[in-house]
Amino acid sequence: MTVPSHRVGEMSWNAWGDPAHATALPESVRGLIADVLGVGLTAAPRVAEADLAVPPGALPPAARAALAAAVGDGHVDTGAAARVRHAGGKSTPDLLRRRAGDVSHAPDAVVRPGGHDEVAAVLAVCEEHHVAVVPFGGGTSVVGGVEPLRGGRAAVIALDLRRLDRLLAVDTVSRTATLQAGLRTPEAEELLAAHGFTLGHQPQSYEYATLGGYAATRSAGQSSAGYGRFDAMVLGLRAATPRGTLDLGRAPGSAAGPDLRQLLLGSEGVLGVITEVTVRVRPVPREQRDEAWSFPDFATGTAALRALAQSGARPTLVRLSDEAETFVSAALSGARATGGCLAVVAHEGEPEHVAAVRALSAAALRAAGGTELGAEPVAQWRHSRYAGPYLRDALLDAGVLAETLETAATWSALPALRTAVTDALTGALSTGGNPPVVTCHVSHVYPEGASLYFTVAAAGGDDPRGRWAAAKRAASDAIAACGATITHHHAVGADHAPWMAAEVGELGLEVLRAVKGVLDPAGVLNPGKLVPERA
Amino acid sequence: MTVPSHRVGEMSWNAWGDPAHATALPESVRGLIADVLGVGLTAAPRVAEADLAVPPGALPPAARAALAAAVGDGHVDTGAAARVRHAGGKSTPDLLRRRAGDVSHAPDAVVRPGGHDEVAAVLAVCEEHHVAVVPFGGGTSVVGGVEPLRGGRAAVIALDLRRLDRLLAVDTVSRTATLQAGLRTPEAEELLAAHGFTLGHQPQSYEYATLGGYAATRSAGQSSAGYGRFDAMVLGLRAATPRGTLDLGRAPGSAAGPDLRQLLLGSEGVLGVITEVTVRVRPVPREQRDEAWSFPDFATGTAALRALAQSGARPTLVRLSDEAETFVSAALSGARATGGCLAVVAHEGEPEHVAAVRALSAAALRAAGGTELGAEPVAQWRHSRYAGPYLRDALLDAGVLAETLETAATWSALPALRTAVTDALTGALSTGGNPPVVTCHVSHVYPEGASLYFTVAAAGGDDPRGRWAAAKRAASDAIAACGATITHHHAVGADHAPWMAAEVGELGLEVLRAVKGVLDPAGVLNPGKLVPERA
Repeated sequence: MTVPSHRVGEMSWNAWGDPAHATALPESVRGLIADVLGVGLTAAPRVAEADLAVPPGALPPAARAALAAAVGDGHVDTGAAARVRHAGGKSTPDLLRRRAGDVSHAPDAVVRPGGHDEVAAVLAVCEEHHVAVVPFGGGTSVVGGVEPLRGGRAAVIALDLRRLDRLLAVDTVSRTATLQAGLRTPEAEELLAAHGFTLGHQPQSYEYATLGGYAATRSAGQSSAGYGRFDAMVLGLRAATPRGTLDLGRAPGSAAGPDLRQLLLGSEGVLGVITEVTVRVRPVPREQRDEAWSFPDFATGTAALRALAQSGARPTLVRLSDEAETFVSAALSGARATGGCLAVVAHEGEPEHVAAVRALSAAALRAAGGTELGAEPVAQWRHSRYAGPYLRDALLDAGVLAETLETAATWSALPALRTAVTDALTGALSTGGNPPVVTCHVSHVYPEGASLYFTVAAAGGDDPRGRWAAAKRAASDAIAACGATITHHHAVGADHAPWMAAEVGELGLEVLRAVKGVLDPAGVLNPGKLVPERA
Repeated sequence: MTVPSHRVGEMSWNAWGDPAHATALPESVRGLIADVLGVGLTAAPRVAEADLAVPPGALPPAARAALAAAVGDGHVDTGAAARVRHAGGKSTPDLLRRRAGDVSHAPDAVVRPGGHDEVAAVLAVCEEHHVAVVPFGGGTSVVGGVEPLRGGRAAVIALDLRRLDRLLAVDTVSRTATLQAGLRTPEAEELLAAHGFTLGHQPQSYEYATLGGYAATRSAGQSSAGYGRFDAMVLGLRAATPRGTLDLGRAPGSAAGPDLRQLLLGSEGVLGVITEVTVRVRPVPREQRDEAWSFPDFATGTAALRALAQSGARPTLVRLSDEAETFVSAALSGARATGGCLAVVAHEGEPEHVAAVRALSAAALRAAGGTELGAEPVAQWRHSRYAGPYLRDALLDAGVLAETLETAATWSALPALRTAVTDALTGALSTGGNPPVVTCHVSHVYPEGASLYFTVAAAGGDDPRGRWAAAKRAASDAIAACGATITHHHAVGADHAPWMAAEVGELGLEVLRAVKGVLDPAGVLNPGKLVPERA
């Protein structure tokens, strides 16, 4: 089998995921939110799709004809429904705008190539006709990465990679697989499972995000402790650019100069369109053991995770919620609040390996002040691991501003970083003496440091987008001032581009611009993302 | 303490390492070589340093004055002794040339800056005065990486980083250290040991190679299974370029665009001069357990190493010699030849972790057909682990052509790769019906593949450099045809540059040229290395 038997459907145009899975705000949470935020909840209705004023598409007829010649007429879609569904990503500002009925930025067409060569042909057409191209995988970006900006051109297309959905090769000896970029994770997992393999990559966007998107944005999955970040899984990749094809990665280790794969990983459609990835795969684990741990406070829990990450006995999954997130999660699941901080831990693999590593890691966690709670809290976490974005829609429906952001730093820098970001968000979003709810967790650990992931809920007020823009700016400035990275796994997109100079320096930006100048001299690829305009 | 108490001395100008450690060819080996290669051994004397015709330095007086202003007059050395000692690296062709008295390529001066700012100042002077700059660390390159090519300019200097020898910072919580680029490994280890840490990086060039050189060439150490490649250890780096300073790496994981560290890692002094690295360090291990294993043949041993690399129970050190190398190593050490293939394995770390991993890995090796031989063969290997280059000098003294080369590929590609390279070397170096001795080992393993390292000994004949050039070309063509990487850890330098188009494509080369155009627009940095001229 080379294509999946079951296809993941399209997401709702103005909310996360499958409309059938939309959830109402639990009564317990309604009361909690109103008490804590000090505001009455209000209904914030969405404009219906039938009432949208979709601007007419501006794709020049000659460009449309050339695109149709490249991919087939049926795969160039200028209809309103498709264009609205490619009008941006899934950040809270994205959703607030579309909920309010603003689809003025919808692309002029949605083009669906059938393979690498057709992607290359589309890029050639767009270069010739001065049409901007926004590569579109699952559409799950929360940083403005798929915002259809025109970059001064007459028109923009969404390059939907949905049809690149084949498993091209499996090497069972070397444990690698070559897959096309448009595969959703459940589809890829189905194809790999037929060979006994798994990717082990489970970000919160698991059900919709694509393999090409993971590579283009340096995604990290919830089991990154065991399976690694997605960029670390990529042995090879193929990318189409307006100036030709790049085939990169010839060995699992190489000293043949700079690693050019690492230029395409994280390139977010600005340098080329990743069409295939050759990734490390692992046997479907024969055993999975879950165990939750409780720590008296976040500092103790963080030190315990550090001990694990720095030992040779790393679990497959390990994440730690702070006191506030532990409390809110318990309230959401109806579980008894236990106080302290909850960590979920899981081990996967061969039974004898799981047993050995589990014994070592449990001893380390116990020595670091942890108390084992058994498997049940992990089961609860697994049950709702992909549900957060649906809950956000329910909060937005109730007039609450809810969003997340994330960063990473060395272990020694984490405490000050957490304080600075929390203070920035609190300062920007307090209203009438009531601070926002800011929770934090550690979800990706390394020997040298970890990521911090913040979830924020605040009263929406009259201008929730404006309020969030100010809060995001304050938090991002705090991250930069701490010397941390502006993003650990959400990528740059349009939203983080202003902080890229802090990240890599002005000279680093010039390097990126020079690379783009070679691969996309006309500048049609995903304008306005990743690399800011020259100051 | 921030500087080492003991300094590593300079290497011999026409041989490897410390002249006091030079070795004569053991009688047993003399007989063996003569028998196998079918040629009588001849004395191949070296031209004495006093008899060298060192060309006069061509550094323009204005450039010399500006360099003296940048680093201090005492650190601009135009004397013959220093220039001869920076006339190239330590490949067999390098040594054959210098042994024959050819130092026509010696640089026009050796400049020794005292820190990052002085490096930057030197680059500015060289750009202004059109002087080529060859960054020089330990001088251990075996691929022509420190060959002082002028690239069409009037003069070339060796930029010796010897004085950048400080430990700048240690973060004991995050287990990172920031070190200057000119530190030799034993010096860095002394500084780190004072804080209880080690790098764990032990390539064969351990005693002389520098940290900056490791980063610039993507070195891999003998314990790469446990400590990782050097490029994987680098969290951050600082590089001086003619267009400014790059400070890269803000977190252990990031999605902030392409990873520009990975452009400087492996850049071999062509894009900038790495002056500082922030690296992962590990506690000095409390336990080390050595164990050798025997396998009936190389295919069985390779499959066993693959099982280890793909399990979660990876040793710190694991390498496997083929039948020929196993035989030769035994002959060299005077040990009883056991037949089959020898693997050396070691585990380092906390005692309980070592015990757990050792039990799992021993079970895997036994199940894969291995027989445990105890610790003694590993002790023998440790005793001579850095001695290979001294033995090569003894072989060259006896008129034998001896050299090494290496590559890497996926596990499934290794058997055909080994055959193709062996056949290429054998075809090129057979004389009078006598084939060369070609041995092979696996010294770096990954879940997806491994490196192959070949050692060759052949009759030198009248034109050993010409013979090696032909053999190297044939082997490199075979590597490229197999889809393997042209180098796993020796880097590109001048010698592998012709195969870079096969490695990254012509478009990949254009990307590298564009990056160089931004960072070194005048093209003064290490001309003729890494990126070939446009076809």
